[in-house]
Amino acid sequence: MIQVAIMGHGVVGSGVAEILLTHKNSLKKKVHNDISIKKILDLREFPELSYSDKFTKDFNDIVNDEEIKVVAEVMGGVNPAFDFVKRCLEAGKSVVTSNKELVAKKGAELLAIAKEKNVSFLFEASVGGGIPIIRPLNNCLVANEVDEIAGILNGTTNFILTKMITESMSFKDALSLAQQLGYAERDPSADVEGHDACRKICILASLAFGKHVYPDNIHTEGITNISLEDVEYANNWGGVIKLIGDVKHMPDNMLDIFVAPMLINNESQLSGIDDVFNGILVRGDATGDVVFYGKGAGKLPTASAVVADIVDCIKNMSTGKYLFWEDCDGSNVMPYEESVSAMYVRATGDIKSAEKVFGEISKLTRKKAPDNEIAFTTDEMSVKKFNAKLSELEKSGVKVINTIRIGDL
Amino acid sequence: MIQVAIMGHGVVGSGVAEILLTHKNSLKKKVHNDISIKKILDLREFPELSYSDKFTKDFNDIVNDEEIKVVAEVMGGVNPAFDFVKRCLEAGKSVVTSNKELVAKKGAELLAIAKEKNVSFLFEASVGGGIPIIRPLNNCLVANEVDEIAGILNGTTNFILTKMITESMSFKDALSLAQQLGYAERDPSADVEGHDACRKICILASLAFGKHVYPDNIHTEGITNISLEDVEYANNWGGVIKLIGDVKHMPDNMLDIFVAPMLINNESQLSGIDDVFNGILVRGDATGDVVFYGKGAGKLPTASAVVADIVDCIKNMSTGKYLFWEDCDGSNVMPYEESVSAMYVRATGDIKSAEKVFGEISKLTRKKAPDNEIAFTTDEMSVKKFNAKLSELEKSGVKVINTIRIGDL
Repeated sequence: MIQVAIMGHGVVGSGVAEILLTHKNSLKKKVHNDISIKKILDLREFPELSYSDKFTKDFNDIVNDEEIKVVAEVMGGVNPAFDFVKRCLEAGKSVVTSNKELVAKKGAELLAIAKEKNVSFLFEASVGGGIPIIRPLNNCLVANEVDEIAGILNGTTNFILTKMITESMSFKDALSLAQQLGYAERDPSADVEGHDACRKICILASLAFGKHVYPDNIHTEGITNISLEDVEYANNWGGVIKLIGDVKHMPDNMLDIFVAPMLINNESQLSGIDDVFNGILVRGDATGDVVFYGKGAGKLPTASAVVADIVDCIKNMSTGKYLFWEDCDGSNVMPYEESVSAMYVRATGDIKSAEKVFGEISKLTRKKAPDNEIAFTTDEMSVKKFNAKLSELEKSGVKVINTIRIGDL
Repeated sequence: MIQVAIMGHGVVGSGVAEILLTHKNSLKKKVHNDISIKKILDLREFPELSYSDKFTKDFNDIVNDEEIKVVAEVMGGVNPAFDFVKRCLEAGKSVVTSNKELVAKKGAELLAIAKEKNVSFLFEASVGGGIPIIRPLNNCLVANEVDEIAGILNGTTNFILTKMITESMSFKDALSLAQQLGYAERDPSADVEGHDACRKICILASLAFGKHVYPDNIHTEGITNISLEDVEYANNWGGVIKLIGDVKHMPDNMLDIFVAPMLINNESQLSGIDDVFNGILVRGDATGDVVFYGKGAGKLPTASAVVADIVDCIKNMSTGKYLFWEDCDGSNVMPYEESVSAMYVRATGDIKSAEKVFGEISKLTRKKAPDNEIAFTTDEMSVKKFNAKLSELEKSGVKVINTIRIGDL
């Protein structure tokens, strides 16, 4: 009998309990042992549940219980999750988590403790919900040098953009609908400002390239500036706008990493990933492009990934330390100004000024555009050079409304 | 230092050697040890290679060498691969293979030996080339009941169908082009008759549902009957024709499993998987749909999957037996006659006869169709019922040209 504890009985936590109970027999076959929930930490009470006797409000009931070998942290946020997870690892327990904020901000420190204590710290559910991505990145692609990872990592923003693209719904209306359907929080900023996607690309980059990348160190743009006009121009260009977390491996082990909306060509496999789905493209030197696609969030997909990690902890009880990366001070992140991309520009003014400043451009059109509206795409250039040219353009009397990166995915 | 051997120095084998040599340092980091190639089995000689001293023509040099802990079998075919792999496992060596025929026909027996000897028998490369699918199925989806697996599992036929769909190339011309490009063998029957896809869905089904499914026990159709007329009707219906390996979990642990061309709706994520790419859809009760997409074949994608398995063997040296399924006599395979599907029919004759026999049908049209050509889709029914109705239809004077399953993917 393996005793486990669950910290947090919200959406994901109750899903973890449900799977552990309903899949008891098939899980037993996998680990050759019974998995039993000994304690669930939550400040609330759930007297109606069949397992209401498992609940505790005191973390010490978990950390001090030597019978508990694996702890699932599904509370979210850094406080008190960080303190709790750290103390569980220090007490020699393996920990699994779905908490992307915790992993993105404290992963290196927690992985170091896990390594020292010879226990596992796993977090498959922190990126892509039920899509297996952390484990394939770590294991299956071990014989590859990963060149790039690019993903639609946030289901809420993908839902909003899909509604804008397919139903010409405004950003505001699409956001309201997402909130009504429970896809977006009342305060949607973590999603729509790109912070959630940022945490996820940081986790993927840390794992793939071996050094912790902190969210504060990377350029993060959300989708609040995207308008239906941009969506229409993107369509006429032959693509769609998606919020992408992207990391490229550059010379000298530097990382070109950022979160930003991007024009994605309709030919790209990422372009067809719609609604609340997530899709992650991994470019390896040997495998070529591999895409992982599925539901990036939700109670059962996420809980199933947490339970898969619990099973993995139990299987690796004797060996531990399954995932690892080193800490890093951000010196491996290339300044965003040096990042190179072709760009989309929408503005009001004279297209001739744009041609003068940018040289070769491709003009875009849309129906019913105001007479003085212009839109075009540029050649590839660094963000620094692009910004300099934008200033020049503005000086020539053109008013820039929006600019968006063009993805090569 | 971990000593490994490679059996076979063809396309995949030379790729395995190349990756082990060129990625020596990054592999060392992963396994905390040097991986060294001690022997390579091949009847040919390669005097020009830097590692020409490793070659042997005698299998005994490998099986009797106690220093060799992991053997990669990349010869293909069942003989002598089966005998060699069996003897390596019996000698206490872990074995990895890219040989789908071997795994599909002899998997249960080899897995049982590996289990008894406490070594690993891994075969990530046998399905989907460089796409990680075996490991995610086994590990990440452990907390799911898998309901269905459906995949485009053969790159050659997908290339041929893509050319027929996008360039209206005939089957014959597309096959010739595939042969010119090296995608198809001179004898293309294993691909175009569906046998290759059959082996792969058997492996996936065996792993997902725990009992060996043998290729001989399942209905297998290829794409040789697909014509440009069918492609055109499929397009007007709103989809494409793809060769699909499909397994559904039915009541009483029975499997509805087959390989057949299918009309796939354009909305499906599998519909956009073109050229030599493979895509595999896994439907879990908790995760929902997860799709894995990438290059299903080729030297380096496949070799990288083999090397990832070698790394996994080394990491699990003390524990072994990572994958497992039981043998089975085919009693878990549902008779194909009971399989249920909506169907596409193309025929010459009177559409009224079709309506009389099938009741509610949806008529399909195409430009420049001969006057007496008819095409339609039916409601869902069992293969048995469908075949009975087809006989009835033929009796009424309609000549059936082709019938294709309609996928719900």
